[in-house]
Amino acid sequence: MSEEKLPSRSQDFSEWYNQLVIKAEMADYAPVRGCMVVRPYGWALWENIQQALDKRFKATGHSNAAFPLLIPKSFLEKEKEHVEGFSPELAIVTIGGGEVLEEPLIVRPTSETVIGYMYAKWIKSYRDLPVLINQWGNVVRWELRTKLFLRTLEFYWQEGHTAHATEEEAHEETLRMLDVYADFAINEAAVPVIKGIKSPTEKFAGAVQSTTIEAMMGDTRALQSGTSHFLGQNFAKAFNIQYLDVNNSLQHCWTTSWGLSTRFIGAIIMTHGDDQGLILPPRLAPIQIVIVPIYKNDIERNSVMEVVERLKGELSSFRFKIDDRTEVTPGFKFNDWEMRGVPLRIEVGPKDVEKGTLAISRRDHPGREGKSFVPQTNIATSVASLLEDIQKSLLTRATAFRDANIHDPSNYGELKDALIKGWAYSWWCGSIECEARVKEDTKASTRCIPIEQPTSFGNCVVCGQKASKKVYFAKSY
Amino acid sequence: MSEEKLPSRSQDFSEWYNQLVIKAEMADYAPVRGCMVVRPYGWALWENIQQALDKRFKATGHSNAAFPLLIPKSFLEKEKEHVEGFSPELAIVTIGGGEVLEEPLIVRPTSETVIGYMYAKWIKSYRDLPVLINQWGNVVRWELRTKLFLRTLEFYWQEGHTAHATEEEAHEETLRMLDVYADFAINEAAVPVIKGIKSPTEKFAGAVQSTTIEAMMGDTRALQSGTSHFLGQNFAKAFNIQYLDVNNSLQHCWTTSWGLSTRFIGAIIMTHGDDQGLILPPRLAPIQIVIVPIYKNDIERNSVMEVVERLKGELSSFRFKIDDRTEVTPGFKFNDWEMRGVPLRIEVGPKDVEKGTLAISRRDHPGREGKSFVPQTNIATSVASLLEDIQKSLLTRATAFRDANIHDPSNYGELKDALIKGWAYSWWCGSIECEARVKEDTKASTRCIPIEQPTSFGNCVVCGQKASKKVYFAKSY
Repeated sequence: MSEEKLPSRSQDFSEWYNQLVIKAEMADYAPVRGCMVVRPYGWALWENIQQALDKRFKATGHSNAAFPLLIPKSFLEKEKEHVEGFSPELAIVTIGGGEVLEEPLIVRPTSETVIGYMYAKWIKSYRDLPVLINQWGNVVRWELRTKLFLRTLEFYWQEGHTAHATEEEAHEETLRMLDVYADFAINEAAVPVIKGIKSPTEKFAGAVQSTTIEAMMGDTRALQSGTSHFLGQNFAKAFNIQYLDVNNSLQHCWTTSWGLSTRFIGAIIMTHGDDQGLILPPRLAPIQIVIVPIYKNDIERNSVMEVVERLKGELSSFRFKIDDRTEVTPGFKFNDWEMRGVPLRIEVGPKDVEKGTLAISRRDHPGREGKSFVPQTNIATSVASLLEDIQKSLLTRATAFRDANIHDPSNYGELKDALIKGWAYSWWCGSIECEARVKEDTKASTRCIPIEQPTSFGNCVVCGQKASKKVYFAKSY
Repeated sequence: MSEEKLPSRSQDFSEWYNQLVIKAEMADYAPVRGCMVVRPYGWALWENIQQALDKRFKATGHSNAAFPLLIPKSFLEKEKEHVEGFSPELAIVTIGGGEVLEEPLIVRPTSETVIGYMYAKWIKSYRDLPVLINQWGNVVRWELRTKLFLRTLEFYWQEGHTAHATEEEAHEETLRMLDVYADFAINEAAVPVIKGIKSPTEKFAGAVQSTTIEAMMGDTRALQSGTSHFLGQNFAKAFNIQYLDVNNSLQHCWTTSWGLSTRFIGAIIMTHGDDQGLILPPRLAPIQIVIVPIYKNDIERNSVMEVVERLKGELSSFRFKIDDRTEVTPGFKFNDWEMRGVPLRIEVGPKDVEKGTLAISRRDHPGREGKSFVPQTNIATSVASLLEDIQKSLLTRATAFRDANIHDPSNYGELKDALIKGWAYSWWCGSIECEARVKEDTKASTRCIPIEQPTSFGNCVVCGQKASKKVYFAKSY
């Protein structure tokens, strides 16, 4: 709540982000290196994200369950790529109840293995399929470079794990959940994401194919904001997830997994925020409206608070807060709530009481242009329409920014230039060598091969060979 | 889903419980000893418990947040009683990212210490108080004797942690949350709990005073079903949680903590279940109504499914499931849903179609006496009233059972007899020696000193000395 200004977003995006997360009381550093505390304001945002996703998961037939935090170390070793990918990142419990454990336990970095073990136990027949389960929980990955929300040792997420009778069904599920993520990101968070397939280098350790929603942050870097994996029969074979088909013959299942984490809070902050602080999309904002009563004396106070009381009733279907602190000035409150990204501010002063109006300020247009005076009558309708408008305008703005920063370089030199300024959308032959060369020269990786592709062919922007796919190259965090 | 019968509840309560939890697909054993998997049906019950509690927490001014899973081992050592209580039960991470950690990290058994550390950072002035935060999460305690839901290495819970300016406020908070738990248990779960204070021997390690809601299970054993602790300044002093008061002088805060866990699912099962299986209280039941269409041929099927389709619309405000499986008989379905504790079953057969009625069976009265034929018109009203009635009757039944099994022994011999059959509600002088003697002789512990006490005095049932309080003695798990 200090009055110290944030670093400028355009001049030092990274430091602007780090300080904003703390100042807005979204999260804080925990005493263990790289771990975070999600504070009530940040967690309320996460709860709204959870609700928006959970509704969609249930509408597509999924149930929630809880699998154990501790996994025998040997489980991880059953899937070759999986163990290679995760081994360097493990937190390992070696002592339990005062004794050295015979087999060390890992704190789950993800749950494919232990869920695979349970599915093998539960699934007997084709009648038991599909199994469509999601888990909300915490996982631990021993990251070296950490940043609040984006990459922390422990983070919160949901992980969906499904088992199917056929390859086709598992493929469909993978893409269905990618669609769910994209729908959520675009329509709830106003984060315009691009759906695509990860290159083999960038895929999840143990997946046959990984899909992703990629978003462009305010500094033009890319952020993988959710992933959905087609696991083929890799885990089914490693854990003997088998079923008897209609002909009574034993088959391996086809499985998927998909996850979206508290990293998405980072995506929201870095997509919409400005120099004044957060700008939260109305559908997810913990507080949609802040009401600031303004008065100089008790007589003014009485008439102002009468209007505020009435607003309470009329705005009861919105998430609002009345800031009636007396120890700080209205100006301080305006800055404070702007910094916290509340979409709408309603000021109620003696003049408003007199005129039957309210001064409403939009967070997405700070200053005079976002301020309007609306009648007190039908305030709920006016507010609903303003919030809807802010939601749309945030998406429009973010989409325009993204599109303005995606380049279409025609040769390798232009590609390198493009990747200093933003993303490149380029033909790629698909070779690991070309991908590695770009990374070496520019630090940019392939973000995704978008699902929607041109029908034509082109030449790989790196090697010039014939290419059938376009890919996004970009730097990430 | 096997047709094998459960063990009889009256003959082998423990084994009845163990098998029922598995058979009803509430939970399963995880590959790590003592850990559990909460399956979708069990987790859906937990989600309903969470919602009922969370609503109450928010109504009493609390917010949710998330604190880290991993805690530096040294933190635990800052509060003497706390470390003594929890040391034997710790899971310890000694390796992270491939390297042996300088300081081992414990997997949180509870979060007073790390939350105390954060509160010390956040709280500066009396204006920051009270801090009212709750966390939904998982904790790990290395238990030796485990039982699904009742005692597992990892369990799920909520832990509230609050900091206050005065001792009185912290006391009030402790009792407010005990009231919240009792209100939830009685009115949502139909589990008649007794509010009381734990004896010093039985209190939480680090608390000044622990309060509890105690419930009697179907075998007359006692189950601590939720606890609320007044922590005094113990953790405030250990972690320097201090604030500047109105006179600008530095004071230690007064803190509380309170928790209710997935153990409560065990309480619901063991309070209400019968030989047929679970009986779930309608307010929390994942499925409140199961609809079973009954037909012999396609013509019957068409007319029956027409009614079922109409029911779908009319019962949309309830949690219902239509069991249209064709591979099992109606009789199998009846047993299956009875075993899973669904409060109401609606059968729709050709005769019902003809007569405009429905056959409704109450789970709390199995067999003919619970079956009635109600008109299809106004079905939502009939169902609502039946569910309300089941909810009430479960509470009445459990209360009557509890009261019939609480004895008032007048001497030590009678006390010992009483504790074979049920609970004893007895005068106790308060001495640790008398408490220990009862435990030694009967394996029963003091469960709680109820908050409501007679105004008279009596003689300790153990030593005969004058006693000012009555206490419940009972065996637990």
